[in-house]
Amino acid sequence: MATKRYTALVLPPDDRLADVCSPRCRKMLLEQFDAKWNTTGSDYDRDALSGMIHDAEVVLTSWGSPNIDESLLDRATKLKFVGHAAGTVKRLVPGSIFDRGIRVFSAAPRIAQSVAEYCLAVLLASMRRLTEFDSSVRRGDWKNTTGVGVELSGKSVGIVSASSTARGFIELLRPFKVQLLIYDPFLSEEEARRLGATKASLEQVMGCPVISVHAPTLPETEGMITKEHLRMIPDGAFLINSSRASVIDEAALITELKTGRFRAALDVYTKEPLPASSPLLSLENVLLTPHIAGHAVEGHQGLMEAVVSDILAAIEGRPTRYEVKKDVWQRIA
Amino acid sequence: MATKRYTALVLPPDDRLADVCSPRCRKMLLEQFDAKWNTTGSDYDRDALSGMIHDAEVVLTSWGSPNIDESLLDRATKLKFVGHAAGTVKRLVPGSIFDRGIRVFSAAPRIAQSVAEYCLAVLLASMRRLTEFDSSVRRGDWKNTTGVGVELSGKSVGIVSASSTARGFIELLRPFKVQLLIYDPFLSEEEARRLGATKASLEQVMGCPVISVHAPTLPETEGMITKEHLRMIPDGAFLINSSRASVIDEAALITELKTGRFRAALDVYTKEPLPASSPLLSLENVLLTPHIAGHAVEGHQGLMEAVVSDILAAIEGRPTRYEVKKDVWQRIA
Repeated sequence: MATKRYTALVLPPDDRLADVCSPRCRKMLLEQFDAKWNTTGSDYDRDALSGMIHDAEVVLTSWGSPNIDESLLDRATKLKFVGHAAGTVKRLVPGSIFDRGIRVFSAAPRIAQSVAEYCLAVLLASMRRLTEFDSSVRRGDWKNTTGVGVELSGKSVGIVSASSTARGFIELLRPFKVQLLIYDPFLSEEEARRLGATKASLEQVMGCPVISVHAPTLPETEGMITKEHLRMIPDGAFLINSSRASVIDEAALITELKTGRFRAALDVYTKEPLPASSPLLSLENVLLTPHIAGHAVEGHQGLMEAVVSDILAAIEGRPTRYEVKKDVWQRIA
Repeated sequence: MATKRYTALVLPPDDRLADVCSPRCRKMLLEQFDAKWNTTGSDYDRDALSGMIHDAEVVLTSWGSPNIDESLLDRATKLKFVGHAAGTVKRLVPGSIFDRGIRVFSAAPRIAQSVAEYCLAVLLASMRRLTEFDSSVRRGDWKNTTGVGVELSGKSVGIVSASSTARGFIELLRPFKVQLLIYDPFLSEEEARRLGATKASLEQVMGCPVISVHAPTLPETEGMITKEHLRMIPDGAFLINSSRASVIDEAALITELKTGRFRAALDVYTKEPLPASSPLLSLENVLLTPHIAGHAVEGHQGLMEAVVSDILAAIEGRPTRYEVKKDVWQRIA
């Protein structure tokens, strides 16, 4: 139990809050904080926030919340904790926020669990050709033209970037006893070992029969997977991108996929929604999903609780799990 | 290394053998056995087998091999091992075979691994609505009508029959930290605990948000899951049947699925191929696959190797993994 009730400004309006805040978390906010709810029916704009941020010791945000820029932070003299019930906090607050002694929390690792389940879902579905089999049965073709699926167990899996989504995915892969290769310049040998993986070059990862891309959007990752890398993908392989479209040269990917020599599952695209003119729409060796990797009911319902319970932990001096610290700011999504 | 080369009669013809016997297993047969191959281009009939079984110490079978009945066994005076590179051995040999001192091996547990991967594939694909999302993206609807998927982590999973496929599936579920309930009259409390599960009634299992049916075809399992059981399935639940169609009242299942209140993934049907008149073909809350749960490239390629390497283990007095013993005969598929 916190010894003092902190004043918490809850920025999401009721309808959005219903998506990201479980009843249990509402109760937690009511009991443990002096919570100020947004009852206006819509997101605050910057000016509205400017008028009320002065008293806030905790600010809780989600998708649609205004950015908390330097001048807002100048007014927020009591602010100690920012909790973001969504993914990236990089556009929400400036990197200088840490120098003001404010601690920042992001529910990204909670979303990562939904993404991890998504990655295994699309990988196994692609390996066992589920959408094709479902179609073939429905059109009366039974299994005559669909071919045979393959197993995941024992395969080599190449991971691009050891992000929190990758780590969640790696946990789900444990029982399959795969060989894990990770390309991530920030990953130490020791941490790779702890993950049961081997550090590898991007070229080695792209040579695996299963490749999963988890790279954040950074200047260094823009177009990182080039035409040449895509040519290294072995025939019969599976490529998953649940992270950012900009990481892969999409035009080159389409060219390579048109050969039909490997399969892909894509959740992100250079332009979303995917335009009707996209050649991806007519490719049978691709599983297409509409940027929903991180979106599952329980995942979203757990977002506010993840950051609120972690802020309580911070207040009580316990270890935190969702805190974003200054030293990782440069490399997170 | 075996001290004596046993004479092994390999019943599958070359083309079928290519599906179920890896090059490594062929090498094993050439080096460790006096192997007699079937070069006739088709499966032996009973008479052909009758003419050659006398010299066999090992008989290796697969789909299409003739049954080895009592009168064939009377002629097989040197027979010590039967290895079946396929699933059920119950129709292949009579239960009395054990009284002749012949040891029997089945690759069913190897197939179980393919089935286990299939079960997780269809479960996660159903939970995340992959076939619907793929369709909605392709028809230009993006994600507007498909709704939100759900997570597997932390859910209760009800298992009908602790068969080898169920056990494989349970292993793959480990990282999801689910609560496992198993209905299986043959399962001891101790074995349930070892599996990390709780013994439960069929009614309790049918009340879980995830239900996976793994029951063998036995007189006791025929129509075991009745209309009443199907009504116990909670709204929003997921039902998987990768075992036998006869276990579930299919007409009642169709009636219940038509309400749209839960989802199913079905691999087996009362009549296969599924007739064009089946109401299942037009239901959107069902993922349909054409009896391929046990069929994956690596799984099939590993079948003969599973039994041959296990027969070698038996010869050398090492523990066996694929042996079917007399005491389990009554309850296996």
